[in-house]
This record gives sequence, C-alpha cells and structure tokens, in this order.
Amino acid sequence: MKFQAIKGTRDFYPETMRLRNYIIDTWRRVSLRNGFEEYDAPILENLSLFTVKSGEEIAEQLFSFTDRGGRNIAMRPELTPSLARMVGAKINALPRPIKWFAVPRLFRAERPQRGRLREFFQWNIDIVGEESIQADAECIYTLIDFLREVKLTPADIQIHIGLRPAVSAMLTQYGVAEEAMDKAFLALDKKPKIPAEAFETMMTDLGLSAEQIQNITTFMDCPSEQAIQQLASIEGIDEHAENLQRLWDILTTMGVADYIRFDFHIVRGLAYYTGVVYEALAAGERAVAGGGRYDNLLQLVGGPAAGATGFGMGDVVLGILLDEKGKLPADLQSPSLDIFVIDAGENTAEAMLTLVGTLRERGLACDYSFKRAGVGKQLKEANRRGARSVVLIEQADLDAPDSLSIKTFATGSQTSMTQSEFLSSLG
Amino acid sequence: MKFQAIKGTRDFYPETMRLRNYIIDTWRRVSLRNGFEEYDAPILENLSLFTVKSGEEIAEQLFSFTDRGGRNIAMRPELTPSLARMVGAKINALPRPIKWFAVPRLFRAERPQRGRLREFFQWNIDIVGEESIQADAECIYTLIDFLREVKLTPADIQIHIGLRPAVSAMLTQYGVAEEAMDKAFLALDKKPKIPAEAFETMMTDLGLSAEQIQNITTFMDCPSEQAIQQLASIEGIDEHAENLQRLWDILTTMGVADYIRFDFHIVRGLAYYTGVVYEALAAGERAVAGGGRYDNLLQLVGGPAAGATGFGMGDVVLGILLDEKGKLPADLQSPSLDIFVIDAGENTAEAMLTLVGTLRERGLACDYSFKRAGVGKQLKEANRRGARSVVLIEQADLDAPDSLSIKTFATGSQTSMTQSEFLSSLG
Repeated sequence: MKFQAIKGTRDFYPETMRLRNYIIDTWRRVSLRNGFEEYDAPILENLSLFTVKSGEEIAEQLFSFTDRGGRNIAMRPELTPSLARMVGAKINALPRPIKWFAVPRLFRAERPQRGRLREFFQWNIDIVGEESIQADAECIYTLIDFLREVKLTPADIQIHIGLRPAVSAMLTQYGVAEEAMDKAFLALDKKPKIPAEAFETMMTDLGLSAEQIQNITTFMDCPSEQAIQQLASIEGIDEHAENLQRLWDILTTMGVADYIRFDFHIVRGLAYYTGVVYEALAAGERAVAGGGRYDNLLQLVGGPAAGATGFGMGDVVLGILLDEKGKLPADLQSPSLDIFVIDAGENTAEAMLTLVGTLRERGLACDYSFKRAGVGKQLKEANRRGARSVVLIEQADLDAPDSLSIKTFATGSQTSMTQSEFLSSLG
Repeated sequence: MKFQAIKGTRDFYPETMRLRNYIIDTWRRVSLRNGFEEYDAPILENLSLFTVKSGEEIAEQLFSFTDRGGRNIAMRPELTPSLARMVGAKINALPRPIKWFAVPRLFRAERPQRGRLREFFQWNIDIVGEESIQADAECIYTLIDFLREVKLTPADIQIHIGLRPAVSAMLTQYGVAEEAMDKAFLALDKKPKIPAEAFETMMTDLGLSAEQIQNITTFMDCPSEQAIQQLASIEGIDEHAENLQRLWDILTTMGVADYIRFDFHIVRGLAYYTGVVYEALAAGERAVAGGGRYDNLLQLVGGPAAGATGFGMGDVVLGILLDEKGKLPADLQSPSLDIFVIDAGENTAEAMLTLVGTLRERGLACDYSFKRAGVGKQLKEANRRGARSVVLIEQADLDAPDSLSIKTFATGSQTSMTQSEFLSSLG
C-alpha cells in the first residue's frame, strides 16, 4: 500500500474494535451504576488551557498548530483542564456534588512505545464540589468496581494509596527545607525504581544527614497496615490521618478493602494534587490508573474554589494486562449475528428479503448472502459471520407448512415451520 | 471564565451528552442489526491520504500540522480514505463482502455556522467488495431503518436517488462535449437552488442550444415515478437502468419504498462517485445524509480494484432536525438512576454504604447523598437525580422486619421489609 497509518496510532479493524468497545462499554456501565453522568469536551482547546495547568513544557508533549485566526490550538493530552473550564463556567447552575465521567480520545506527541501511544482512550471519573473523603472513597470504589467487572482480582492489581500532605509534613519534620521540597518529592517518586544508595545520594545532596534520611526511609517503607498509626508520629496532620482512616472504613464497609493498600511512595508529580493520591499497579509497577484530590485546579483556570477528586485509566496498558492475564471475553474473537437467512428454494429470493426486513424491524441482528450460492456455501457464510441460528427459506409460499427450516448452531437442532409460526416463536 | 471553548466546537454537558449518546447508540444498534461490523481509523493521518482523493484544495479545509519528524499530519475531515487504506492493506485476508460501519469524530477547518461545526460526529456505512446493486440497496435500507428508528417519517424526509453514469450519458447524448462535462455536472448540482434562467445561462456558456438545454431540463425534471422508463431514451445505459429497477424492487420488497424517490439532480460532486448516488433530504433541501457508489477509490490510494458503496450522516444537522420535529425522546432531559439509598435512621450510615455496594455489584445504577441531611433533603436529591425508586434505611439491624422502606416514584407506593426480602424482590 502507498499509505500507512502514522506510527503510534491504531487501525481498529473489527476484531480490535470489539476489544475497544468491550473496554469502553464496561467503563460506561460501571460509571453509570455508580451514579456518574457522562460528559465530554472538544478535542481542540486553546493551548494555554494546558500550559496554565502543567507549565510551558507541556507544549512540547502535545500536538498543536496555529489556526487561520492566529490562535494556538492544541489537541487535548488530558481532559481535566477542560472539565475545570466547563464546571467553572456553570458552577452556579450545576447542583453539587458534580459526579461526572468521560471516555475522551486523547493525543500526546510522544515517541510511541509499548503501552504508550500518540492516540488513546482514557476513562475519567471525577467528583467536583465535595471536599469530604467520601468523594475520594467513591472514586476509588468505582475504580475497584471496574476491576472486578473485568475479572482483575486483588492478586492481579492493587490500588496503592498515598497522602501528599502527610508526606510533605513528614519531610518538613525530618528536616527537608521548604525550597528543597520539590526535589525531595521527585526523589520519593523515584525511590521504588532506583537502588537504595541512589536514593540516599539524592537526599544527601539536599543537605540531609544519615539519620534524617533513615527517618524518612523508615516512614516511607512502613508496611501498609501500619500506615495510619504511623501518621500519629507526624505533627499537624490529624485531620488527614482521620481522613485516611475514614477512607479505609468506607471501602471496608463496601466490601472492597482487599484491593487497596497504603503506600506513601505514591506522590504523583508535583503541584497538582492536594490530598489523597493513588495508582492502580499491576505486576512490574505498571500503572493502569492514577488519580487523587486536586482542590486548586478550578481556580487555576479562572473558576471558583471547589474541591475536586478523580482518576484516569488509559485503554492501552489495560488492554495489554487483560490480554496477558487471559481475562478478555472469548466472544471478542468473532463477529456475531442473531439470525442469518438463507435462500434455499426456487424463487425464494424475494421471500428471503421480506423476512430479513421483518426481522431487522424487530431489532434482530440479521443478514443474508448477496450471492445466490448453494445452501452449503450460504451456511458457511452464516457460520463465519457468527450467526446463532439460520433460517432456510424453502418455499416462496410462506404460509405453507414447511416454508422455513430453523437451524440453531449451538444445539444443532433443525425444525420446519411456517413463517407466521416462526415469527410468533420469537415472541 | 478565563478560558472558553473554541468556536465551532461543543462542550458536552450531561444533557447534551445524552443527546449525542442517543444518536450514536441508535446508529450503532441499527448498523449491527443490519449486519455491519464496527471499525475505526486514527484521527491523525498523513495529509496526502486526503489530497490524493480530493485534490490539494482539501488541505485548506482541514486542520493540519508538521510533526517533529517533518511529516504533514492531518486531522481527518472524513473517514472514507482511511477505510480505503485499511481495506487495501488487508484485502486478501478480509472475506467479502466487507460490511463495515463507523462513528468517527471528524474535523473541518471551516467557518462555523448553523449545522456546520469544526468538530462533529458522522455515521459511516460502507460495503466493499460487492459490485451488485444489492449492496447499494442494503446501504439505503440501513439508512431508512435508522430514519424509522428515530421516528422520521417519509413525510419528514425522502432519500433522493440519482444515477451518475445515466446523467453523464444523457449529457453526451444531448450534446455536452467531454471537456465541458465537469462544468455541466456543476450546473446540474446547482440547478435546484438557482433560478431557471441562471441554469440556462450556465448551459448556454457551455455551447448548448436552447433545444439541447430543453432536452436536458426535461430529463432532469421528470417525475420520480417515470425516471426508470425515461432511462430507455438514453443510449448505452441498459445495465444501469436495470440496476435502478432492481434497487426499486429490493426496497419495495423490504417494505421501505415510501422513503425513496428518483431524482437525477443528485450528482454529488465531481470525480468520486461512479454509480447510484443519493441524499436524504428534509424540508428546505437540508441533506441529513449522502452517499453512493465509489468503485475507484481503493485503487486511488494504491489498493486493488474493488467495488465500494456507502453513505455518511452527520450528527449536527440530524440533531437540529429531530429537535425541530419534536422527535427526541423525553427521557434525554434528565439523568436517571435505578435506586437512591437514603440514610433515614440512627447509626444507619454504614448499613446504607453496604447496601449501595451490594446493589451496584448487582448491576443496578445506585447512589446516595454525601451529606447526612434530613430525609426530606435526601428525597429531593433522589428526585433531582432521576431515581426510579428510593430505599430508606430505617434501622441498622438489617434483619429487623421494617429495616427498609421502598418508595417507588412512578406509583407513589411505599412498603417496608427486611434487607434480605428486598434483595430477593429484585430477583
């Protein structure tokens, strides 16, 4: 072929499309049953909407162009800034809490690699206008409800929950200066992926003593089940500690605590998050989802103050994980039809078309062969198309006793009847 | 607000999103029941994929940019070139006929106006690898099946069907020179929208006599029901005339002929279409859908020869029409939930959370209030959220005889029971 798809983009042939639809339909179903309403924003936004949140560097990581009016237009790399813009514009008209979900198609100008593409889909769950930890719990519950729905167990995946303000207070208490805070967070973010000595060097460079580093390491590496007790050793974070306890209690009451663990290594970037932060991690530290509380974003884009919390989950890493774990439904492999109608007699072509029309009008997925081939060939086509049953039109006189034969592929059974008997058998 | 949506794009707040989902879900359901499989292509394609089909002018009408590798990347203004690329790349692996549908998001760099936006959705129905008129009939039937599904009647909308090769032969027979053919098609395309004199002037400029123009006008304006007979007066198009008759017969047999009429004014652009062409027109000549046979496209993008036919329908004009005609379902106005659970007793907060979890696990759309407000306020929230029924948790002891009250909004009925009675009542 003269033309090929651009690297980092995907052609969705029907088989791949079924996988995409399976993921997106499941995201939607789980969102709706957890009381979230769907929204979306344009793919094209003003570039400055993204730079105001993420800094000028973001412009290098997204696709943008100048339109004929001289405006800098970006293809959205994430949905949250648009959410903040939309909610900000109608904050007084929207009853709170705002529980919204979306499944945006997103674009990033990055070098394509396994799990990272230039075009992908992302599930977004957000609650705006509710400051209490209940909102965070509700988002995490919804994330777990999805994991259960796609048959990922607590052994496959765990949600690691951190607490940014506690880590910040801990670093201060153990001697990290305010101006070194950003670098310290960066070091903590890297800690699980680098050797202990490398982490120590990074912290020593920030002017910390061996003892201070030891205190920090002990705090960070504490077992999940002791995390809440340990918060008592840090000053000024009682409210945060209570929140974390309440989060645990809610998720325990709702029966999903086996999917979560506390892990203070989760800090997720620098300035954006203001409270609980979390990542759903599969083996190999692969993040399938990530999110947390971000109470300042609305004001950043010019809106009012309003608490906000939520997460995103991309389709690419999730698809790879479900495939690896053998959790993809078998019926994604082939197409499906309810009924395939076969032209099996003399002069039955017209009767076949009439029946096809009638069945489709009743909402049944129904098809027939364009070729007037032999019955064997038409049966083969029915099979390839995934038809659950076939109707063979044997006589043009549809009121004759054996005008049709119904063959069900699953049972192998075959019965003859008139067309009206057949239609009433469908209910 | 500091930031606004770019002109010609849409913010999909939940109410608008419900309309978008209603349209897209109906497109999907109708496609599937007519035996089409869903596919999609990337939004980003090489610019040349579009210029090879539509000429260099198209570059002015779409959004494009140069990526860091120096490639000219376009945001797709239509899906068909990508379809041709994808089918071309796998033509030997794909069993024919290829019956595919898609609901792409498309982008056009045009001045926004009513019915024309820069970002929109389009339903695409295509059959590739089948030369017979049955494939065209199948596409048109599917289009009509959708119109019926959204309650647009033959009085609201008619599919005007033309035949490009017949019009071309007619023009030759009545004296239009080969080199004037493109301009003649352009004039015919405009004819229904301009005064008779303006059309006559355009044709006179092509060197035609008053008699020749009269012949052409008579042919073009012939009543729909005489269209097929009239084809007999044009030489060398017997096969095309038979096809049009067969198309009529199939759609009549399938019970949808009241939606179609033959109309030779429909020529749809210049070089692309090779056979039957059609537009679904509502009052005021507004085209809701358009398509036809395009047998040369695959070769144009470097693929093999293969017959192809299909149509596209945009969401914007359709949405306006459905709204004007009052055909939008009433339930798009408000959100909906199956059950809203209300914390109505002392110490019932935990029991409420447990029940919410249980109901969601059973697949019910279920929510509760973050505020521990009075029952009246919680009922109000349930109502605003569109809950079909509410469960009031009255006792923390869920096995007590009147631990729950169930109130159904539609009937106004209220009953008390235990939690296990309630759960088994759900089936």
